[in-house]
This record gives sequence, C-alpha cells and structure tokens, in this order.
Amino acid sequence: MYRKELHVTSHREGEIIDMTEDVRTAIRESGVKEGLVHLFVQHSTAALTTIEYEPGVLSDMQRALSVLAPDNIPYAHNTRWGDGNGRSHVKAALVGPSLTIPVADRALMCGTWQQVVLLELDTNAGRTRTVICSVTGE
Amino acid sequence: MYRKELHVTSHREGEIIDMTEDVRTAIRESGVKEGLVHLFVQHSTAALTTIEYEPGVLSDMQRALSVLAPDNIPYAHNTRWGDGNGRSHVKAALVGPSLTIPVADRALMCGTWQQVVLLELDTNAGRTRTVICSVTGE
Amino acid sequence: MYRKELHVTSHREGEIIDMTEDVRTAIRESGVKEGLVHLFVQHSTAALTTIEYEPGVLSDMQRALSVLAPDNIPYAHNTRWGDGNGRSHVKAALVGPSLTIPVADRALMCGTWQQVVLLELDTNAGRTRTVICSVTGE
Repeated sequence: MYRKELHVTSHREGEIIDMTEDVRTAIRESGVKEGLVHLFVQHSTAALTTIEYEPGVLSDMQRALSVLAPDNIPYAHNTRWGDGNGRSHVKAALVGPSLTIPVADRALMCGTWQQVVLLELDTNAGRTRTVICSVTGE
Repeated sequence: MYRKELHVTSHREGEIIDMTEDVRTAIRESGVKEGLVHLFVQHSTAALTTIEYEPGVLSDMQRALSVLAPDNIPYAHNTRWGDGNGRSHVKAALVGPSLTIPVADRALMCGTWQQVVLLELDTNAGRTRTVICSVTGE
Repeated sequence: MYRKELHVTSHREGEIIDMTEDVRTAIRESGVKEGLVHLFVQHSTAALTTIEYEPGVLSDMQRALSVLAPDNIPYAHNTRWGDGNGRSHVKAALVGPSLTIPVADRALMCGTWQQVVLLELDTNAGRTRTVICSVTGE
C-alpha cells in the first residue's frame, strides 16, 4: 500500500476543487498497476465526490445543497457554540468523506466527464484541507 | 484482485436497476472467499447505492431526489451547454459513484432487504452504463 | 484481513450513534498497522457517515434529512405494505451504507471533529443493528 497526504487550499464557502490530477500523480508514484485508490477528507465541513467539472454544474450543485441546509434558518449547532457553520456540517455529512475509485493499467478509471472533487462547505473557508490518499493493489 | 466490467441498459430517467445478481456472479467468478467487493459507476449522471428493491420505495426515492434537483427550475449547466440534464448531474454527485460491500464465505454480505442498485439519473436514458466491479481478498 | 461484527442498539427514529470507539477497538484487535477500515451497515433503514458528534449538529442533521423525506407526506412504500417507514428507506439510500477510513500507525485517521456514526432512520427503532467491520493492510 502506498499512502500520501494531499493538500488543497480553498478560498470561499461552496468552492468545488478538482483533485483529479493530484490523484493521478499519487497513482503514478505508487507504482500500482491494478488496484484501487481510496480518498478520505479529514474534516467535518468538507466532502468528496465525483462530478463533471464545469462551472454550470458546480453552481447547480451548490444550489441543491442549500435546499438541504439553507443559509438563513436557525441551526442548533450555531446556537450552542456561536459558530456560523451549522449548515456546513450537515452538507458534509450527507455527501460523505470517502471515495474509492478503481486503478487499471496504472490509470484512474473515472469516466470522461467525471472528476474527483473536494467540496469546501465551511463558512470559514480559505483553509488548507487534508485528503489521505491510499493506493492498494499490485 | 479480480476485476470485471458490468453493463446495464437503462430505459428511462429515474430508473433504478437491481444489480445484486450481477455482483454475486462476479464474486463467484473471482474465487474470493473472504474480502470486499467494490463497485464504481463510470458516469457523471448515474449513481450507486443500496435500497429495498420494491416499487413503492423506488418511487419514493425518485420523489426525494427531485426535492434536491426539481425538474422545472433553471440549471446553469443547461443554460451553458444547451443540455437538459443539469438535474441529473446534481443528483448523481450527491448519491455518489462508489460502494463497497463485504464478502464472507463467498457471499455478498448485504442485509435481507438491501439490494445493490444503479440509479439512471440522466434525462437522456436508454443507454448502457458501465460499472467496474473489483473483488479483493483471499 | 480482520473482520468483526459490531452491534449497536438504537432507541428512537433519528438517533445518531457514535461508533468511533468500537471501530478503534476493532483496529487494535486486527493488529493492522497501515491499511484501511471498511464499515457496512446491513440494513436498508440505517446509514453510516462521519459527523461532529455534538447535539446541535445531530439535531440539524435530522432536520435536513426531513427536507428530503418529510414525516407527513404519502409514501408509496407505506401504501403498498402498510408500513410507516417509507421515509426511512429514502434517507438511508441517500446517505449510504458504507464508509472506508484510513488506518495509520494503528490509529483511525479521522479528523479531530469527525466521528463515525450510525444513523437509525427507522420509525420502528429500538432495534439492534449490525455493522460489518473489515480491517485490511499490513
């Protein structure tokens, strides 16, 4: 097993960051030819998924998440702790922190229109996020 | 590691296709007795999850996804590209493309009411979808 | 590979149960130093994710799930089967049954504010839920 920490810096709430090239680099470095790559974001206000990395879709995705956790409703988390990121925790828990993708012939087996992305969901963005990348196989 | 491509053909937007038997077949072919089976759908407008495969639940699931991404609102993706599948991308990114399930004594360890399903979310359905199935273990 | 069944008992619909210590115990028992831990809940009305285990966030999460699957609307599942848990199936399929987290230096690599949780989503709670925990690596 090969392991590497990937780091990305976000700039604003709702930002969706394309990590596909970072993952491809880790696969090359791992020397794994056939296997799986696993990604895990170590934060409770960020999440991982795949999406077509196109500005229209990214904006539609942000709107959809705000249906689940709107900006302007009271959050028990905010009331208890004086935080402003109640909505961030909810969105992150729903999308989820982990993602596994096949590796075949040393390549990441995503579809053509399918990029690996980190969702920065915190209201207090502009922070560095750590994603643990583990490549297993032969 | 044993790897196999599974193919399913959808017929309409919102269709939920039971892939459980295909996955069981792949496990048998793999010869793996104790391990994990990983599934990944290589498309940005389809998704994987588990659900009780019963027509009522499937219909309820489609309604719930339409809360997140309703049919009749403007999508930035559609505006930019003249596509009609903005809602499809959003739903797929939220449900997610990957799923891992334990294999024990050569069997898929799902619960009794828990089937492995592909969600066809594209407005342009009637297409063949590829799911990469990887079985690891001993 | 080390495998263990984890069991948790829920008390009410919407309960979110912290399983982090159970997972840490399984990792210790496995003897795995560097690898991955995989969790799978064997039920169609429960789900797994990570969240900051703080009462405010847990309550906000329950509210968000009820946007997707409100209490007081008709469910096709309920109509067909006389069940009351149509909303439970929908929420569980959206959050998902599986979760994979890295293990490094014999430790679970979650973030500081990131606990492993089971969501009891069934209207008929007060039941024992089985989570299959598989630890792979060296």
